[in-house]
Amino acid sequence: MKVAIVGATGQTGAIIVDALLKSATPKYEILALTRPSSLQKPEVVGLKEKGVAIVAADLGGPEDELAKLLEGTDVVISTIYGGSVAAEIPLVNASKAAGVKRYIPCFFATVAAPKGALLLRDMKEDVLNHIKKVFLPYTVIDVGWWYQVNLPRLPSGRIDYAAFQTTDGIAGKGDVPFALTDVKDVGRYVSRIIADPRTLNRMVFAYNEVVTHSQLYDLLEEMSGEKLDRQYVRPEAISASIAKIKASEPSPDSVEFVTLAKYQYWYSCGVRGDNTPEYARYLGYVTTKELYPDMEWNSLAKYFQDVLDGKGQRVYKHLQDLPAINADKKG
Amino acid sequence: MKVAIVGATGQTGAIIVDALLKSATPKYEILALTRPSSLQKPEVVGLKEKGVAIVAADLGGPEDELAKLLEGTDVVISTIYGGSVAAEIPLVNASKAAGVKRYIPCFFATVAAPKGALLLRDMKEDVLNHIKKVFLPYTVIDVGWWYQVNLPRLPSGRIDYAAFQTTDGIAGKGDVPFALTDVKDVGRYVSRIIADPRTLNRMVFAYNEVVTHSQLYDLLEEMSGEKLDRQYVRPEAISASIAKIKASEPSPDSVEFVTLAKYQYWYSCGVRGDNTPEYARYLGYVTTKELYPDMEWNSLAKYFQDVLDGKGQRVYKHLQDLPAINADKKG
Repeated sequence: MKVAIVGATGQTGAIIVDALLKSATPKYEILALTRPSSLQKPEVVGLKEKGVAIVAADLGGPEDELAKLLEGTDVVISTIYGGSVAAEIPLVNASKAAGVKRYIPCFFATVAAPKGALLLRDMKEDVLNHIKKVFLPYTVIDVGWWYQVNLPRLPSGRIDYAAFQTTDGIAGKGDVPFALTDVKDVGRYVSRIIADPRTLNRMVFAYNEVVTHSQLYDLLEEMSGEKLDRQYVRPEAISASIAKIKASEPSPDSVEFVTLAKYQYWYSCGVRGDNTPEYARYLGYVTTKELYPDMEWNSLAKYFQDVLDGKGQRVYKHLQDLPAINADKKG
Repeated sequence: MKVAIVGATGQTGAIIVDALLKSATPKYEILALTRPSSLQKPEVVGLKEKGVAIVAADLGGPEDELAKLLEGTDVVISTIYGGSVAAEIPLVNASKAAGVKRYIPCFFATVAAPKGALLLRDMKEDVLNHIKKVFLPYTVIDVGWWYQVNLPRLPSGRIDYAAFQTTDGIAGKGDVPFALTDVKDVGRYVSRIIADPRTLNRMVFAYNEVVTHSQLYDLLEEMSGEKLDRQYVRPEAISASIAKIKASEPSPDSVEFVTLAKYQYWYSCGVRGDNTPEYARYLGYVTTKELYPDMEWNSLAKYFQDVLDGKGQRVYKHLQDLPAINADKKG
């Protein structure tokens, strides 16, 4: 089974590639579509060494050239930066022209209302609508909120090494349930979903556990033996932050855009309660719980234990530097 | 089962009301939400005489008043004018507030790509996205293209009495299949669908037959014994007409808007081939063929026979006068 992937060196892409490489049935032959300017990057060279075929591809170039690259490809996966999903349109057209059997657009996030809850989701829905307009076989894969971006800090500071910068509070009373997934499990989910005929032309919700913020804090408190600082943030305060950033119309490559996304995820998951299996089923998703009841996944408790044992990993490391990079761009 | 309907005196609404009144199981109690200014209209008085409860309702008024009217209502059906579907938003909010168990937005048309194929569809999708955002139980019902708007004229002129003004040609080579329904069957389909738990939060495609334009012409030729005038229109010519009207940005209450819709339906069904069970299933619809294999429906041949026998009926009679009405408005 021949799989082409865009964004193979990114946070989600790299995890998917690793899982596909490890898969025994089916065996995946992987092609990483790579910007010509990135061919010599160490991460790209690293992929090559693992057995991934590296192909120079310019998503902004002629669609027929892209289509040629995709000839004979069974599955195309996009894991490009969420703010850039509009750049997928030529890839969708090329996939259609090349007869690709299944296209996986860049969703890989929480379940949310199709329009009006998350700007990132709004943009992804536009891509999905284009896919449907050209009648391209597809599968949407959403993966819930990650354990890794929901790790509270401990007063001792001993797990700060693994904490994502945006974990800064509890929305409302902390009693709204949401679905969580270990980012490390995402690849294994994707590997099964893309080979499953039942998921063709469907939206799939892959998730590990459903918890509230209070339950999550309780669990870490119990496991760490430390008393957590619970900062409750009123929903109105989150809405106000969203409205303020939105009004500035941030460009997708700005730190403000990422901050907007962070606030919107927080509101959608923590206040609206969008990111649940119940809402997913209402929206037409099938979930991995029904599809793969046999499948093993990492529990939240196991993730916390690993972090407490010093075996955690921080995600999106590059985002820690974003403000500086961005300030530089502006100057 | 208590059903509230908006647009009960319109082409589709009246047919639905008739079918609901005739239904034995379930028994429907019907409420027609009616503009205060229309309460004395003969069609409205006629509904009252049939046993429909008439309730004055202003969709543009306060949502909490609308919600009060809808208390205890099981199903809300909207069959308002396609160009006015944005006016459904307060009705959706009121239905949510009133705890309505199922909302049927005004779709009742052909299957088409969610965005970019039909302006009317684009607008309906916006309403559907709002429904999903507020997590209101819904069912979308599309009914294919009607026999009644696809009746070719005969050289003798003997069936002109039943012909809709827009039946003016064959798109392309006339070899693209599309699904057709007798408008008279729409009510019976709706009556079953809204009482069916399997159709909750789904899109349903109700249709009778799948034919190409050539097959449709062949059949009428054979049945009438007359040789039909086959005017083939190139897809590029239809596209050009669409682009030209679009550029003028017609307002939804203009005759140009209706003409745009006519051209877009023609292109979507006759060129793109959107209006098929295959594409419907791809888009996530379930069809009445799977749901109700036992159900009887009027065949295209039977419809033609009725028309040839002088028993046909012209649909959308008011549209014959539209240009005049519109010119009057402008003047």
